[in-house]
Parts: sequence; C-alpha cells; structure tokens
Amino acid sequence: MKNLTLVKIGGNLIDDENQLLASLEAFAKIEGSKLLVHGGGKLASDLAKQLGVDSPMIDGRRITNAESLKVVSMVYAGLINKTIVAGLQALNQQAIGLCGADDNLILSEKRQHESIDYGYVGDVTEVNTEALSTYIEQDKVLVLSAITHDGKGQLLNTNADTVATELAIALRKKYQVKLIYSFEKAGVLINPDDDMTFLKSLDMNMYQEMKENGTINNGMLPKTENAFRAFNKGVDVTIGNLLRIAKDKYCGTQLIEC
Amino acid sequence: MKNLTLVKIGGNLIDDENQLLASLEAFAKIEGSKLLVHGGGKLASDLAKQLGVDSPMIDGRRITNAESLKVVSMVYAGLINKTIVAGLQALNQQAIGLCGADDNLILSEKRQHESIDYGYVGDVTEVNTEALSTYIEQDKVLVLSAITHDGKGQLLNTNADTVATELAIALRKKYQVKLIYSFEKAGVLINPDDDMTFLKSLDMNMYQEMKENGTINNGMLPKTENAFRAFNKGVDVTIGNLLRIAKDKYCGTQLIEC
Repeated sequence: MKNLTLVKIGGNLIDDENQLLASLEAFAKIEGSKLLVHGGGKLASDLAKQLGVDSPMIDGRRITNAESLKVVSMVYAGLINKTIVAGLQALNQQAIGLCGADDNLILSEKRQHESIDYGYVGDVTEVNTEALSTYIEQDKVLVLSAITHDGKGQLLNTNADTVATELAIALRKKYQVKLIYSFEKAGVLINPDDDMTFLKSLDMNMYQEMKENGTINNGMLPKTENAFRAFNKGVDVTIGNLLRIAKDKYCGTQLIEC
Repeated sequence: MKNLTLVKIGGNLIDDENQLLASLEAFAKIEGSKLLVHGGGKLASDLAKQLGVDSPMIDGRRITNAESLKVVSMVYAGLINKTIVAGLQALNQQAIGLCGADDNLILSEKRQHESIDYGYVGDVTEVNTEALSTYIEQDKVLVLSAITHDGKGQLLNTNADTVATELAIALRKKYQVKLIYSFEKAGVLINPDDDMTFLKSLDMNMYQEMKENGTINNGMLPKTENAFRAFNKGVDVTIGNLLRIAKDKYCGTQLIEC
C-alpha cells in the first residue's frame, strides 16, 4: 500500500503570512503523495466582524447563518485556498485548490440537532475516494478548504479538522495514511500556556483522564476527538506544529495504543 | 476535431440569483464538452465598498491594489465560483471550480504600463492547454474564475472576458471552439438602452465604424475587442444572453467575416 501524508493546517499558522509560507515550505518538502486541508484561522471572524456579520462559536464550532456562510466561502475557498495554491505552485508543487463541492468530493448534510440550530453547517456523509485518488495518482497536490455541499446546490460549512479526519479515514482504504493536525502549538499540552509541556505520545486512557480533569478543553476537544477517530480507523496520527515536526519528527503528540 | 463550448458569464447574470440559476440550467443543457468562465458582477465592488476598499475602474478595467486583490480573490474564486459549482453539481454536472493558479492553468504577468499602475492586474502569458484538456477528456466541467498567477506565488486579477478569450484561443489548437460571451443584454446593441436593437451579426468593418461613432463604448469595448481577437484565431463567437440563445440560437450577435 502506497503512503499518503495528509496535513491539516489551521490557527495562527494561517493568520501569520510568514508562518504560512514556512508551513508551505515544510509541506512542499514532504516526499511522496500528499494532501493539504486548511482551516480559516482568524481571517473569517475578522471579516465577519468588519461586515457586521454575527457568527458565534459553540464548543469550538461556528454557527453559520446565510451571511456567515458567504464569509467563510469567500475566505476559506477563495482567499486562503488560492493564496496557498499560488504559494505551493511557486515551490513547484502541482497544487489544485478545491472544496468539497468541486468534483463532488465531499457530500454533507445540514446538521440536525435537537436544541441548537447550527445553520449552514454540514456533517460529512460521503467522501469521493475515487475522485480523490485520481488526483493523487496523477501526482497532483490537492489543497482542500472545508466547504462541503449537500449535492442539491447548497454549500455547507464543515469543521476543517473533521474534513481532514473524514478524508484520512476514507483514503485509508487505499493508502497508508499519515495525518498531521498542524497548528501553532507543539502538540497536546499539559499546561495550555506552556509549549514545552507537550506530550510525546497520547493514548485513549490518558486522553479520557485529561478530558475529565479539564486539561484538554475548548478548541482542543473536537481536534483530539477527531484525531482519535482517525487513529481508531488505522490512521497514523500526530498533533503538533508542522514547522517543528519537519525539523524533528518526534516534536509533536503521536497517538498510540493503550 | 471535437467540439467544445466555452461560455463566459458576467454582469447581472451573476448578481441576480434567479438569473444565475437559470443561466446554469441553460449551461447544463449544452451537449458535449464545455467550460464556464465567470466574472464577478457587482458583488466585488459591493464588498469593496462595504469594507472601505478603493478599486477604481479605468476603461472598464479595475485597478487592483493589495486589498482589492483580496476582495476579488474572495468573491470570484470563493463565493461565486463555489456557488456556481454547487449549482451545477445539483444539475448532475461534474463541475470543478478552479482559478488560473490551480494546476498552473493560467500564467500571467503583472501589467506593465507607462503611465497607469494597474496594481495586481495580470496579463495572460501562457495557458496550460494540456492540463485543461485532461479535465475536458474526463468529461469534467471546469468552472474558472479570472484569478491568475505569476508562478512566483503572486495571485493576479485578470479581466474575465480576456481569460475566456485566451482559453478559447489556446483550446482552438485541440477543439472546434464555440465561445459565447453571455451577459444581461441580447448582444451588441445599436441603441445601448434598447435590447431590441441587437445586431444578428457583426463584422470587423461594422465594428470599427461603431467604435468610431461611439455606439460601442465603455464596458462593451474590451468585450468586443476580445471577441474579435478570438474570432480572428478561428473561434466561433457569439455575444449575447445565454438564456435567450438557449431558446433561439440566432438570438445574439454572431461575429462574421467582412
């Protein structure tokens, strides 16, 4: 089985132009088949604020009304996606920037929830593994924003960690998938304010404990949930900062069996 | 030689949701290989205005500073492109939304002009015909926004009519290309305020005359220039409204030899 590296970048790595460029350089150096999934950092919230569009967060997930869907479509699928593609092309990567609607890559359905109306938020229902592997086999480097669609003409906003997870799980059928959730921190931290306290490895028992005692909370919760979901489906998972992992592969939190 | 229909949509056809959907339905009904290029209508100017970004027009071409490049990247390559893709997917079209940076499809260089600094405006230098025809041969329907790149990491804003023209000319080497510049009007009008006065055909001599006497002016000038450039390279060209042309193929201005 061929190897495939799937990198998800988000957070400050996208907000800061220099860090983004450095991340793209690190990504370009990864050998073999690879795929990049990106979030939107603070840019979408900043633009929403500038335009007076309300987009509150609940449990690290954005409520997406019609206006904020426009904002995330613009920022994620437009500005950030194309900036990354142009940056990778300059590094001789055959980058192609797509969202889940393109080539029908990621189908989702509007989230149903008994008490919260998440608006135009999509939960992934199907990943088009065939189409994805066609690009991969042609040595194209897909750059995916986390905008998906319902197949009936509606774009939906999906959490970028979740998109990375679903892609990794789907592509695991065809590839040995290594998934790196890259963000500004060195990994899962014991003290959220001290980057030196990152865990070299994390198993499900430790994770449950850290969740219960509140060490892992807020935005880290869905990320770690996603990470274990992929891990439990046979994906090799690291949570950390791509820039540091590129220099030292042990610099990041590697998920391990109990 | 295989036929290829290239439709460029712009203007009010994009601003108005119902007209956009109707245009996509008309486009979906076109048989055989096809490709869609879109402009940005008023959406980009509206967003720029809301954000206080200055983006003046000279001779129907937008001056693009760093901030307005962000706006057009968001609106053209993000919101509009993905809205169109999701709409076409709902019509069972295997749509893929790309810009010129993706797959290195359209290379351009920053416009050099002795007196006007156009900012981040790109003039097309190379069209990647091989990559484009790979999608076409796989029966994919490309949806292209007019954002290009210089290959060195810089996105550039390019006139959508020009992009359609350059693509048509490049693809003419491999296909019999039919190019339709679709917009809100019925074609080239004798009286710009009366849609009933559209010309059924237009040759270079008539065009020169109408240019000199001012009948063709403003935004119609670059469109018609582009149209004749493609026509002179063997492309079958119609200027009109796709919705009307879909009902009656003679409803539009067909370019003809003198």
